[in-house]
Amino acid sequence: MDKLHTLYYFLDLAGTFAFAISGATAARQRGLDLFGICAIAFTVACGGGIIRDLCIGAIPPAGLTNWRYLVAAIIAAGTTIGLYPFVRRLNRPVLFFDALGLSLFAVTGAQKTLAYGHNAEVAVLLGIITAVGGGVLRDVLLNRIPVILEKEIYASAALAGASIVVAGNYLNWLSADWISIIALIVCLGLRLLALRYHWNLPVYSNDKAGHD
Amino acid sequence: MDKLHTLYYFLDLAGTFAFAISGATAARQRGLDLFGICAIAFTVACGGGIIRDLCIGAIPPAGLTNWRYLVAAIIAAGTTIGLYPFVRRLNRPVLFFDALGLSLFAVTGAQKTLAYGHNAEVAVLLGIITAVGGGVLRDVLLNRIPVILEKEIYASAALAGASIVVAGNYLNWLSADWISIIALIVCLGLRLLALRYHWNLPVYSNDKAGHD
Amino acid sequence: MDKLHTLYYFLDLAGTFAFAISGATAARQRGLDLFGICAIAFTVACGGGIIRDLCIGAIPPAGLTNWRYLVAAIIAAGTTIGLYPFVRRLNRPVLFFDALGLSLFAVTGAQKTLAYGHNAEVAVLLGIITAVGGGVLRDVLLNRIPVILEKEIYASAALAGASIVVAGNYLNWLSADWISIIALIVCLGLRLLALRYHWNLPVYSNDKAGHD
Repeated sequence: MDKLHTLYYFLDLAGTFAFAISGATAARQRGLDLFGICAIAFTVACGGGIIRDLCIGAIPPAGLTNWRYLVAAIIAAGTTIGLYPFVRRLNRPVLFFDALGLSLFAVTGAQKTLAYGHNAEVAVLLGIITAVGGGVLRDVLLNRIPVILEKEIYASAALAGASIVVAGNYLNWLSADWISIIALIVCLGLRLLALRYHWNLPVYSNDKAGHD
Repeated sequence: MDKLHTLYYFLDLAGTFAFAISGATAARQRGLDLFGICAIAFTVACGGGIIRDLCIGAIPPAGLTNWRYLVAAIIAAGTTIGLYPFVRRLNRPVLFFDALGLSLFAVTGAQKTLAYGHNAEVAVLLGIITAVGGGVLRDVLLNRIPVILEKEIYASAALAGASIVVAGNYLNWLSADWISIIALIVCLGLRLLALRYHWNLPVYSNDKAGHD
Repeated sequence: MDKLHTLYYFLDLAGTFAFAISGATAARQRGLDLFGICAIAFTVACGGGIIRDLCIGAIPPAGLTNWRYLVAAIIAAGTTIGLYPFVRRLNRPVLFFDALGLSLFAVTGAQKTLAYGHNAEVAVLLGIITAVGGGVLRDVLLNRIPVILEKEIYASAALAGASIVVAGNYLNWLSADWISIIALIVCLGLRLLALRYHWNLPVYSNDKAGHD
């Protein structure tokens, strides 16, 4: 399954790139300068993984040591700046790669946590944090409520993916590779279906207190 | 003093639950979805302790490994969603348990830091951060200035509690159990009196520059 | 070069103090209370270094263990509260010391990361984070978009300083002391020239998509 790992590697960079594009686009729309756009692109791409690595004791965090992530973020920022009309029209592919990044980061985040010897709860929580942490930091830095807390099946898809990895690992189903492929497909599928059919989690209006 | 530790354990969960209720209520009022409410409840309950554990090298943070905290946060979120009119009327008990959580987290935060062999300054600072960190993260995620930085004796009560733990430890007064009971009572008393009599720390208006 | 290290030590405290003044002034203008002003002053002064220390595994972070930083932050907060009209008139010296703090923190941040055995990319990134992290946390806590992401040559000057330290270390030019003096002068010079001549990084307006 060596080809699988080459595929993973490619998908990981594609996900990083898509996350960075989403950060750079948001930063550009808020009127940040060149440095700000690069910083937000890098934060979205690597922020979740950095928090995970701090929590599992993987020092220094991979997001800071591996130049490929930094280069992917800078290329994404450059693309967003130079080819903005093109990137805007890319909306659909970007959403697709963002969903792919979400799925990959949830799966690899949970796997890395298990590999460091931590328990199931830590692995599920850090799988989610790896997947959504960068987007939360982006929204905090751009001074708005993180969109993933407000609507859409997004973190919930990451929860599903990370849970499958952890359950598979404990129950010793199949091989680790098959488990991660299943987790990936479930998370990606959930996210794409949610996008397609506008699935949202329930919101509890506070004005109608007592009526729900 | 075994009963004391059972009591502590119960109070710790009660404080966690109260912190989670405060997070879930604020998240619901801001219109977050189901996941957002659970995420903010968990963040308020465990955020301060996670920052403390990262700073003292307790990897992985207890907030991520101990399922009791996660369960307490999810039950608090469920209660806030399902029984909102009831939770709103609970305002007083919630403020009381929040004050209890503040006091317990300040005391146990300072104790854990000392137990890891760090110095007095680190113990006081991390006692405060354990107690107020979750609330600060809640306000940052909900896109508002942390309320504890604006008014009320809140972090100051945590400072008093953590300082008593540290001073007691250095001066070798009494037993550790007695010291922590005194610290707890002082912190809780300060906070409850501040709530009752609307004690605030001074604010320095910037419009009257030169007159204060 | 013992005098140089005494000089460094003095400059480090001066930079910390200037950073704390900038935090306390911003906190006061937002109407925070006494605790809030001290907390923001300390966060600006030590926040960047604490993030760096977490990422390189220097536990507990120096910002929490070294009482000199805490004292410098509290004195800065007290000065800002008690002598506000005076501090306001100090605008120029504060900007100068802030630039000095930026340069020193970029240089020492990169050096400490290299000393912990991490690679060039980590050292450059953490040099920047040491220098600008505190200011970013200040703006996040005060609920605004970090000013360094929006305009001015600020983080870019830190990037230049940290890069010179890292390049000098790899190429084995000169002695480490000379390299850090050069890095310091370049970073400080860039920042002061940017302030003097209002140099900004480009911003890409999003309304004119297709025209830039």
